[in-house]
Amino acid sequence: MADHAPSVAMEAVLKPSCDLPEDMPKIRGYDFNQGVDLQAVLKSYITTGFQASSLGLAIQEINLMIEKRLEPVEEDEGKEWKESDEQRKSGCTIFLGYTSNLISSGVRESIRYLVEHKMVDVIVSTAGGIEEDLIKCLAHTYLGEFSLSGKELRLRGINRIGNLLVPNDNYCKFEDWVVPILDQMLLEQNTEGTRWTPSKMIHRLGKEINNTDSVYYWAYKNNIPVFSPALTDGSLGDMLYFHSFKNPGLVLDIVEDIRRINSQAVFAKRTGMIILGGGLIKHHICNANLMRNGADHAVFVNTGQEFDGSDSGARPDEAISWGKIKTDAKPVKVYADASLVFPLIVAQTFALHADKLTAGKKTD
Amino acid sequence: MADHAPSVAMEAVLKPSCDLPEDMPKIRGYDFNQGVDLQAVLKSYITTGFQASSLGLAIQEINLMIEKRLEPVEEDEGKEWKESDEQRKSGCTIFLGYTSNLISSGVRESIRYLVEHKMVDVIVSTAGGIEEDLIKCLAHTYLGEFSLSGKELRLRGINRIGNLLVPNDNYCKFEDWVVPILDQMLLEQNTEGTRWTPSKMIHRLGKEINNTDSVYYWAYKNNIPVFSPALTDGSLGDMLYFHSFKNPGLVLDIVEDIRRINSQAVFAKRTGMIILGGGLIKHHICNANLMRNGADHAVFVNTGQEFDGSDSGARPDEAISWGKIKTDAKPVKVYADASLVFPLIVAQTFALHADKLTAGKKTD
Amino acid sequence: MADHAPSVAMEAVLKPSCDLPEDMPKIRGYDFNQGVDLQAVLKSYITTGFQASSLGLAIQEINLMIEKRLEPVEEDEGKEWKESDEQRKSGCTIFLGYTSNLISSGVRESIRYLVEHKMVDVIVSTAGGIEEDLIKCLAHTYLGEFSLSGKELRLRGINRIGNLLVPNDNYCKFEDWVVPILDQMLLEQNTEGTRWTPSKMIHRLGKEINNTDSVYYWAYKNNIPVFSPALTDGSLGDMLYFHSFKNPGLVLDIVEDIRRINSQAVFAKRTGMIILGGGLIKHHICNANLMRNGADHAVFVNTGQEFDGSDSGARPDEAISWGKIKTDAKPVKVYADASLVFPLIVAQTFALHADKLTAGKKTD
Amino acid sequence: MADHAPSVAMEAVLKPSCDLPEDMPKIRGYDFNQGVDLQAVLKSYITTGFQASSLGLAIQEINLMIEKRLEPVEEDEGKEWKESDEQRKSGCTIFLGYTSNLISSGVRESIRYLVEHKMVDVIVSTAGGIEEDLIKCLAHTYLGEFSLSGKELRLRGINRIGNLLVPNDNYCKFEDWVVPILDQMLLEQNTEGTRWTPSKMIHRLGKEINNTDSVYYWAYKNNIPVFSPALTDGSLGDMLYFHSFKNPGLVLDIVEDIRRINSQAVFAKRTGMIILGGGLIKHHICNANLMRNGADHAVFVNTGQEFDGSDSGARPDEAISWGKIKTDAKPVKVYADASLVFPLIVAQTFALHADKLTAGKKTD
Repeated sequence: MADHAPSVAMEAVLKPSCDLPEDMPKIRGYDFNQGVDLQAVLKSYITTGFQASSLGLAIQEINLMIEKRLEPVEEDEGKEWKESDEQRKSGCTIFLGYTSNLISSGVRESIRYLVEHKMVDVIVSTAGGIEEDLIKCLAHTYLGEFSLSGKELRLRGINRIGNLLVPNDNYCKFEDWVVPILDQMLLEQNTEGTRWTPSKMIHRLGKEINNTDSVYYWAYKNNIPVFSPALTDGSLGDMLYFHSFKNPGLVLDIVEDIRRINSQAVFAKRTGMIILGGGLIKHHICNANLMRNGADHAVFVNTGQEFDGSDSGARPDEAISWGKIKTDAKPVKVYADASLVFPLIVAQTFALHADKLTAGKKTD
Repeated sequence: MADHAPSVAMEAVLKPSCDLPEDMPKIRGYDFNQGVDLQAVLKSYITTGFQASSLGLAIQEINLMIEKRLEPVEEDEGKEWKESDEQRKSGCTIFLGYTSNLISSGVRESIRYLVEHKMVDVIVSTAGGIEEDLIKCLAHTYLGEFSLSGKELRLRGINRIGNLLVPNDNYCKFEDWVVPILDQMLLEQNTEGTRWTPSKMIHRLGKEINNTDSVYYWAYKNNIPVFSPALTDGSLGDMLYFHSFKNPGLVLDIVEDIRRINSQAVFAKRTGMIILGGGLIKHHICNANLMRNGADHAVFVNTGQEFDGSDSGARPDEAISWGKIKTDAKPVKVYADASLVFPLIVAQTFALHADKLTAGKKTD
Repeated sequence: MADHAPSVAMEAVLKPSCDLPEDMPKIRGYDFNQGVDLQAVLKSYITTGFQASSLGLAIQEINLMIEKRLEPVEEDEGKEWKESDEQRKSGCTIFLGYTSNLISSGVRESIRYLVEHKMVDVIVSTAGGIEEDLIKCLAHTYLGEFSLSGKELRLRGINRIGNLLVPNDNYCKFEDWVVPILDQMLLEQNTEGTRWTPSKMIHRLGKEINNTDSVYYWAYKNNIPVFSPALTDGSLGDMLYFHSFKNPGLVLDIVEDIRRINSQAVFAKRTGMIILGGGLIKHHICNANLMRNGADHAVFVNTGQEFDGSDSGARPDEAISWGKIKTDAKPVKVYADASLVFPLIVAQTFALHADKLTAGKKTD
Repeated sequence: MADHAPSVAMEAVLKPSCDLPEDMPKIRGYDFNQGVDLQAVLKSYITTGFQASSLGLAIQEINLMIEKRLEPVEEDEGKEWKESDEQRKSGCTIFLGYTSNLISSGVRESIRYLVEHKMVDVIVSTAGGIEEDLIKCLAHTYLGEFSLSGKELRLRGINRIGNLLVPNDNYCKFEDWVVPILDQMLLEQNTEGTRWTPSKMIHRLGKEINNTDSVYYWAYKNNIPVFSPALTDGSLGDMLYFHSFKNPGLVLDIVEDIRRINSQAVFAKRTGMIILGGGLIKHHICNANLMRNGADHAVFVNTGQEFDGSDSGARPDEAISWGKIKTDAKPVKVYADASLVFPLIVAQTFALHADKLTAGKKTD
């Protein structure tokens, strides 16, 4: 038997390495011997590796959006193309997108905080992401379990969203509330020539709900446009369907809204995208940012994977190939359920800089 | 030291079991000593376990949809509520949904086959799921790699979709093709009072593309409605945006379409849902089937997971709680990239029964 | 056209619901208008839904383990079966398992804290989970990116672990350090009749590293057994392989260790399992707990899914079917990369109760 | 209002593209108008995109392994380092690894076929991957459902593995079968000086089971080494644990096996790795191939993702950075449950070339 190990093995295993750059961050986690300091724990994430580092980078990137947002904007900047007064004088226009389930969850309160304090500029959500916020003003959503039997729940009229439970009565209450508004909208269409779009309808619903718990109440108050091109795809669609029998004729146009959202991107000085979840909302914000040859900043939080070629799971680098994110941007994707990380992100970004962000703003 | 093992351990490990039912399927995979018989390999999947079994069950469930579809429908059935002649006299109305990426991929050819031969009744896709089919009639999509650099691709004008590459010239060609159609649509709106909806626009685009490779050409020929409520969320939206400057005024109404898709579900004798991917398309088909208190059959193919509470990743059992699938249905979810399994599913279902399914049908 | 919506649709959509129990938690997230209070943010997670709730439940469950752990144990309890003095007089024996990558990451510091302060009783990790801790005492691991080119890295002698980078020189230093220890171990085997097992070897390596940054130094100091049945599957295996040429004959027996770990479970008053990641470490801890007919408490943190039938991705309920978790336990699975949540978990559990947990303990 | 679209938007959307190479494959799926030809369907996968393309590439890569395997090997090649006669005279040494659940599933039959016909050279599996094969020779595994209640199953003594069910009596039968073999092994250790290792024990169990349904019977017959360093981590461990009370002293050494598996890699002319699943088995095969400075060919099939930094989910490119796969190799990862794709892979590779692969081989 040989008395020394095969040289090929020795050389492969003990291959010498080149030096890494001096300033490369070393991996080191939080030392709890220093006590329980959650701020310090979260600060340590950037050198913790894996998704902890991604969360740390996401916090950095959003703080950069905020820093740019606070930079003064020259009067003339963006003037030429300005379509209306809508475009905010902001150093960085922040697009926030989220899927319906996050409004059903307690992430809604984090989102409402951002909207209440005008910390974001443009919102995109799905139909459920609109109506569930309004419905929560009418009745509660509860904590259940992922494994509850669908059949037993249906027999009891309880709807499940992951580990959340929504009594079906909530939707009955929603019908009572929304149908008179639909009547009124149709009347305005017919008498005043109002051309309704999803964003205009959401603005109106936000006004009507008149409840400070609501994301869309604050979007209305703060004149933050909310886009939801498939606004019929949910309970609102059910109501519009029923309404189309009783009182037909309401039209919701999606062409005007595509121009409106694109303008938000085109005429911005800089843009940042914060997108929680995938599907329509992710694509819609990214596509609007193609109109300016790419967002300057981007943070994605979702659980999707790229292997199936879905836009939902695509890494930000795919969006760079399309011109939806600038080629020199440093986009960040955090692979996580947003419920786990978004409140922490808000805590370390917008809420931390609340004073500066809300200085001089008035929500009248 | 003890000379016998702890009794708690012995009892826990060697706990006797109750008998399982006699007819419970035994796990057994394909024996390649019988030669390479791919039909037999796929037949063995149902007793192979894990997602192989799910694929086997999905094939069974779709074959059940097909069997029911072929059952004769009484003249009077569904008459009362019939809104128009649109509802097909089919024993089982099949809703097919798929995300944009599948049209970009070669799954498009499987979908086109189903539509060409009137094997499905209602289609839901996203904007990309419409336009990429049309664009493929104008220029090719290529096989690349997931890891190609976004920046380098953007500099060369090449867009990446997972491991697919789409030259940006394809979208330029699409603009050349679609803008005159938009002009014409606006003219018809203004002169003939046409009220455009996404489904009507897709029908028109299918007519105009006039190419037998196209899914929507065949949807047009076979009068299969295609719904895409957020039709502005993609290249079509870009074109509508540009068009809104040159030739403003085109309106796309989504309310009429929600009534139209819901009617497809309400007035059907039975329904089956085949949904590839998540997001809007999954929710939209399921929501329409809530209008009939649940689909009778459902097959989902996607890579989503339930843990983040997304509708995309929800198990079919969640849809049962909402009344979107009947409480006594046997829905199947296959956890897989649809590109891997959908061609095999078509091979073992629709294509296998092509003779029966196309008997007496004429595509004029 | 009908003037009222189909009754089937109305009834399905507006189905009345039964009442939910009064004490069912309502979904409500943190309100940042109350300021940035991270403790309060984390407290709000249990009513935030989805994985935020799972994290909240995991924290509760671990705090219950700690509470039980602190309960006094009668002198006689577990006496009959007691194999040795090894079994700690603890009200709840806590098994901690983690995969190699977590030691490479900054989660190592959280783990070291638990071991340093004798907060856990039994550890299971993979070979990498042992050696990377030791290697980190010799040289640094760095933060890189997931997308760095493997070929370029290899040419430079830099190894990638996700977004971490480990210079190959680290392994050369490890060889220099470990080979004399292997020589000594072989000498002791041959002269003193030592029968080495993975757990004994890890104990020895922990002694030799003599570094307070090391998890296994503290495991040695605190006499916490560490199991790693496949200890040859990594750099240690490479070194044992090389050593087998130079100085052959070292034996590592895995049978003695299986008895040792099983005894830890069998003779415990109660047990709790905290398992970060999947594969061997998850199965090994669960299997040991089968020996007592199930753990009393269990928290899993991983990104695996059940659909492929892997033990890694199995929900805790699968382990109940095997008797690895008690049928009346309330196990929790958090679907997340452990780097994101484990430091937060430690902050809200062990570190929060550090005073009580370390009272009367001495690490001499 | 402006009468032309913003130029930034026009230029970003209509950016011209560079030409792609002429020979770049065009995306095109199977056309079912050509009939149901499953061979042709699978052939079309390479140009279908996403994981269908990955499956196509995996089939190509394994066929390349087979082609190289069939190349004649010079007498002298590898002579110098040859440790024993074990190293097969094969142009490409194929390492096959798989997790326990695949043996529980019907993928076992595909694996057994490969081993029966000496189509692979080295096997690595987990403890469950060994014992479940033997147990299946004693009693059946059944098809159940993922959602069955763990508590109810435990009360009935039925164990769940994903959607498979294994009556606990199967393990009682296994005990009856294996304990006398353990007695005999201990006797041989004590009387003949046999130094048992996991691979030697598996060889013996394969001999004893003496059943042509068994993977390890054929591994025994064909002298294919099977490595499972943590062989105590499962039912075999339970039995060894019980046995250690009744009849103590059996030793299983893992050091000898690490040398044996590494030799398989070092002395091979070329190597190919086919790894189904993650965890120990993936790392163990890759680590052995580091000893030759990288495998020449690699196909991974699993559902893991890279974002958590686990070795299980790492892309093959990570293994290149470590020298576990050669820098000029073309490794393929298929993101799928192996039950869905491995039988198809075998059908298009080993089984298709069975004649050539088995020519001149004799299984006596």
